[in-house]
Amino acid sequence: MKLALCQTPVTASLQSNQETMRSYVRRAAEQGAQIVCLPEMWACPYDNAAFPRYAEAEGGETWKCLQSAAREHNVYLVGGSVPERAGERLYNTCYVFSPEGEQLARHRKVHLFDIDVPGGQRFMESDTFTPGDSLTLFDTPWGRIGVAICFDIRFAEWFRMLSLEGAKLILVPGAFNMTTGPAHWELSLRMRAVDNQCFVAGCAPARDEKASYVSYGNSLVSDPWGTVLGRRDAEQGMLVQELDLSYADAIRTQIPILSGRRLDLYTLEYKK
Amino acid sequence: MKLALCQTPVTASLQSNQETMRSYVRRAAEQGAQIVCLPEMWACPYDNAAFPRYAEAEGGETWKCLQSAAREHNVYLVGGSVPERAGERLYNTCYVFSPEGEQLARHRKVHLFDIDVPGGQRFMESDTFTPGDSLTLFDTPWGRIGVAICFDIRFAEWFRMLSLEGAKLILVPGAFNMTTGPAHWELSLRMRAVDNQCFVAGCAPARDEKASYVSYGNSLVSDPWGTVLGRRDAEQGMLVQELDLSYADAIRTQIPILSGRRLDLYTLEYKK
Repeated sequence: MKLALCQTPVTASLQSNQETMRSYVRRAAEQGAQIVCLPEMWACPYDNAAFPRYAEAEGGETWKCLQSAAREHNVYLVGGSVPERAGERLYNTCYVFSPEGEQLARHRKVHLFDIDVPGGQRFMESDTFTPGDSLTLFDTPWGRIGVAICFDIRFAEWFRMLSLEGAKLILVPGAFNMTTGPAHWELSLRMRAVDNQCFVAGCAPARDEKASYVSYGNSLVSDPWGTVLGRRDAEQGMLVQELDLSYADAIRTQIPILSGRRLDLYTLEYKK
Repeated sequence: MKLALCQTPVTASLQSNQETMRSYVRRAAEQGAQIVCLPEMWACPYDNAAFPRYAEAEGGETWKCLQSAAREHNVYLVGGSVPERAGERLYNTCYVFSPEGEQLARHRKVHLFDIDVPGGQRFMESDTFTPGDSLTLFDTPWGRIGVAICFDIRFAEWFRMLSLEGAKLILVPGAFNMTTGPAHWELSLRMRAVDNQCFVAGCAPARDEKASYVSYGNSLVSDPWGTVLGRRDAEQGMLVQELDLSYADAIRTQIPILSGRRLDLYTLEYKK
């Protein structure tokens, strides 16, 4: 299976961002990718002032744009995230489409990004967004895939539950910044992979030093041993990586992490 | 507060290992350390054949040796681990002593190390040991400290529970090997620190290339941001590191990980 991570540039123009997206998905398919992942907030600047202006309901123009890209290029499309409007509420939402254009999943970011590092990054996502409340997985011919968005990766519990629900690969559209990115992006993606003995891939927007919020970029894929199979730098570009998801099963027999949990001593319960 | 990690050499001679231990604790105290940590299996070769031969009951000769070292040098002593005999059973056990020589805690390794990497490391700790069943913490004037042994660190749940029980520092006597050490030792120590917003330190035996099981060494301390404050290489030696445990509180206000858990969606329950 070939996975493509599209590290797209994000501008203030929705139309331009949609065209960029279509161009990346087309080129990913041309390179043989069967699953294509977009970054968090690929259609809209990562800015609390922008989110309400760019927000659309499920089934709206940007949703249709994703659907047609998946169908046209015959790929599973994990649509990064876009601001979703649902009545009075806004969500940071990832839509997932099958190669036939069917919506397979919808992930609303569960853990909102509220951070205040003195001398570093400050951002309060909960000023505009409402958090989601569901684990998100979908099935493909190569195995089950989990989806989480950016700050969701901070929570070991969440990724444990995704792996226990069968994920062999977890895709993480994310936009870490220049404070947390160098410190925690690779570390987090690799460790969730090692802990859960699955592949984990993070897909970020390209860095734009002039943006109000500067994305770290560095889209990358970790295998279940914690080895980084491929990564981008800060610039726009695409990472196409061949993955054999059965390697997760091999690792699980070598080191008993998932099977070695002491369920007599602790339990992690998903309440939905 | 000054923490000392003693990366001691381990020989087949119990008496020699005890003398080495005493010498390290004395030198740690001379350098101002108030808390001194020893490695996993500092008194005994890391070998299933050796564990039953070196095992002693709680209160035995090696236990008394630890107690007197703590008292004589007026330090909190986290006694790495030794094979403990309790009736028919053996445990991989860490005793913790106060500067007055009082036993403050006893941690029996909860997650036993059973690994089989083709072309790499194979070891079945459960061939000889029985697993423990308790979270282990103790209080000091600088804050609460958790203890875990080596493979325990593989389990995100266990470290989450230690931090929720108040640990600002988690000490991990551990002996990763030449397969898992380069791949996962630093990654695991740093990520548990970042996830739980506390200090995490791993203390390993010095590397002995002629041993049946070769320790990776590389004792190190990570702060709650994931920064490695200090580390050793493969050789015997000591790392003395000044720590301000209140930095954990500062990090916890900057990034809401512990406080941002979605307890409406999942719960981690400790069953004891």
